[in-house]
Amino acid sequence: MSENAHAHDAVEVIAAKRDRHELSDSQIDWVIDAYTRGAVADEQMSSLAMAILLNGMNRREISRWTDAMIASGERMDFSSLSRPTADKHSTGGVGDKITLPLAPLVAACGVAVPQLSGRGLGHTGGTLDKLEAIPGWRAALSNAEMLAQLESVGAVICAAGDGLAPADKKLYALRDVTGTVEAIPLIASSIMSKKIAEGTGALVLDVKVGTGAFMKSLDSARELAETMVALGTDAGVHTVALLTDMSTPLGLTAGNAIEVQESVDVLAGGGPADVVELTLALAREMLAGAGRGDVDPADRLADGSAMDVWKRMIRAQDGDPDAALPTARESHVVAAPASGVLTRLDAMAVGLAAWRLGAGRARKEDPVQAGAGVVWHARPGDQVTEGQPLFTLLTDDEHRFERALASLEGGYDIEDGSSYDATPIVIDRVG
Amino acid sequence: MSENAHAHDAVEVIAAKRDRHELSDSQIDWVIDAYTRGAVADEQMSSLAMAILLNGMNRREISRWTDAMIASGERMDFSSLSRPTADKHSTGGVGDKITLPLAPLVAACGVAVPQLSGRGLGHTGGTLDKLEAIPGWRAALSNAEMLAQLESVGAVICAAGDGLAPADKKLYALRDVTGTVEAIPLIASSIMSKKIAEGTGALVLDVKVGTGAFMKSLDSARELAETMVALGTDAGVHTVALLTDMSTPLGLTAGNAIEVQESVDVLAGGGPADVVELTLALAREMLAGAGRGDVDPADRLADGSAMDVWKRMIRAQDGDPDAALPTARESHVVAAPASGVLTRLDAMAVGLAAWRLGAGRARKEDPVQAGAGVVWHARPGDQVTEGQPLFTLLTDDEHRFERALASLEGGYDIEDGSSYDATPIVIDRVG
Repeated sequence: MSENAHAHDAVEVIAAKRDRHELSDSQIDWVIDAYTRGAVADEQMSSLAMAILLNGMNRREISRWTDAMIASGERMDFSSLSRPTADKHSTGGVGDKITLPLAPLVAACGVAVPQLSGRGLGHTGGTLDKLEAIPGWRAALSNAEMLAQLESVGAVICAAGDGLAPADKKLYALRDVTGTVEAIPLIASSIMSKKIAEGTGALVLDVKVGTGAFMKSLDSARELAETMVALGTDAGVHTVALLTDMSTPLGLTAGNAIEVQESVDVLAGGGPADVVELTLALAREMLAGAGRGDVDPADRLADGSAMDVWKRMIRAQDGDPDAALPTARESHVVAAPASGVLTRLDAMAVGLAAWRLGAGRARKEDPVQAGAGVVWHARPGDQVTEGQPLFTLLTDDEHRFERALASLEGGYDIEDGSSYDATPIVIDRVG
Repeated sequence: MSENAHAHDAVEVIAAKRDRHELSDSQIDWVIDAYTRGAVADEQMSSLAMAILLNGMNRREISRWTDAMIASGERMDFSSLSRPTADKHSTGGVGDKITLPLAPLVAACGVAVPQLSGRGLGHTGGTLDKLEAIPGWRAALSNAEMLAQLESVGAVICAAGDGLAPADKKLYALRDVTGTVEAIPLIASSIMSKKIAEGTGALVLDVKVGTGAFMKSLDSARELAETMVALGTDAGVHTVALLTDMSTPLGLTAGNAIEVQESVDVLAGGGPADVVELTLALAREMLAGAGRGDVDPADRLADGSAMDVWKRMIRAQDGDPDAALPTARESHVVAAPASGVLTRLDAMAVGLAAWRLGAGRARKEDPVQAGAGVVWHARPGDQVTEGQPLFTLLTDDEHRFERALASLEGGYDIEDGSSYDATPIVIDRVG
């Protein structure tokens, strides 16, 4: 905690926000530190979180709140590296494997990528869960290992240690069970406290909007993006945000091993067009933020150098990039019920189906199935023929098909002779 | 719990109220029962309480919430008594000893008074703390003892057992530390769940308004009164509320033994005019509610029968009504700093002074001093002369005077040649 934080009382701080007052710097410093130490109880912090959710915080309060969470733990320092650093954070979407091709691609362009990731909970997958489908790969690295790999390979994707923003870790778990996740000031400070403590020089935020995203409306996504960009900028991190579409899932797969395969396809110069487009758009922002806007990442995909970094990155964490990926024991094909144009493919429906097949977890202790997931064989705008395979469902447990099929029902439209207006993937840019 | 309550999820119920939806009967039944059982955690209930505080509940929700709290415990039954029953509840004020003369007075008029009371916390005193100043008197009675005393004496003032509305007991303690006390739906349901479970036939609510009261504004006091009257009426209890002034403390004393003495003075036919007036007003409402509106309680004060019931009531609980009351070891007189009319005597200032002298407690485990408190020698409207005693401060610990004196500072006005407009004690009636 900051040394000049004065002693306060939990009820006083709660009552101030309840009564729509601004919290003082001293109140914020005290409450975050006291909560981390256990002097403010969970039932007091959850009441404060609900008051913040309903009554809001202004930019100064959110900035101080973020600083106080950073101060609760360690800060990493990449200034000894020979290269600039850039990182990306996505607010989470279905089929969002972008980190996998993006980190080695940006590293191949000369910018180091220190990507601290998490595991999935609910209908959106987790980057670490996906990479753990690769035989031998390990997520846990010490800070020294991480720094060494950043210097030697240029990219690292690993689990965030317990030392970064422990206040956020505790608060995030509390919000999850107290109906207080949906507070923009708390979402923004949670993400940014970790990213600022991580010590990246540049940061690109991929804020998802749509049915499969946490933010369902463009207005709320924009508010979150603007809040985070302001927090990053205040902290001296070059920060921009892209608002990107998450009404439709990304690529053609949602799962773990199958998303690794799709990422490798992109690194090999192929892969679905939308995944390639978003990977390049985010790479360009990261490079520009790190002062390397002169490099075109598309060249590094084409010349195989991004793939080289990928293989070295996987090997550095004991994974075998050439090993066969795990496959599911059972599969079930859903045929197109009619001919026409696929005009809608709902990200939430697909995400829920993948989750129900075993690709995700209901509780954070649960394991995930490496081979489980959903493959879709058409994207919105594609012509489909009655009886052709539309989805392939993959799982190790046959009994999971029924509920997965139920979540896909009503999740897509096939219309006869329709014209289809494609939504752009990148909707807007903030920063 | 009601047998048809369905299983819900805490986050679902919290999110519904957070998003300004009405809670269903089933959600309310479930959350109260699950909280009482420990299946809903404190940090979930406090988040819900803050959402209720900020987003409100409608009459149906408050009524169901109250019913669910009643259903969490036992209900008392006074139908075997030969007399009708009536009870009074005050929202708490400074110098509010009214229960002491009121219960025996109403009993002397032929209506039984089952008064379950509490201890004080903060600047308002507790009825049980006051009675415990009487040598030998005990607050804890079994239900059987209470019923027997109601039959034989007609009045009982005792501690509420753990069996009545245990959900409320748990929730009240939680609200106290989570900044969620100030929610009218929760205040109303807390009070009314206990009073309805207690089984009284008629109920009079003394809702205090002013600086020394929990409700500082007439609007909020009226909203609370109307909410509680509706809840009582819905539950078949004849309920009315009086809105009464608490800008000025009641009577001439705030403390424990000194308030018992003032109450005995009223029962003996004397005492301060405002205490007599409010006691009679509440007694008339209780008698009317119990169908004995024909009896004039003033006669029972005058003929000594109320005093007789008082003595029998105290003796039935092992107290000696004729024993000398404890006195404080130390006293300090504050002289009037000027001559003129006392135009203001602030209830909160006096209440805080009495509390700081040891008459009240800061934490519920703390003891109170029987002899501590404040006596004021003039009431608003009285002429005072410079140098005459204005306050006498009483405590066992000399070091307490300083902070008590500080709380009285600025707590009164003496104005030269002023005319004084007296505020009526009873401001309005609801019901």
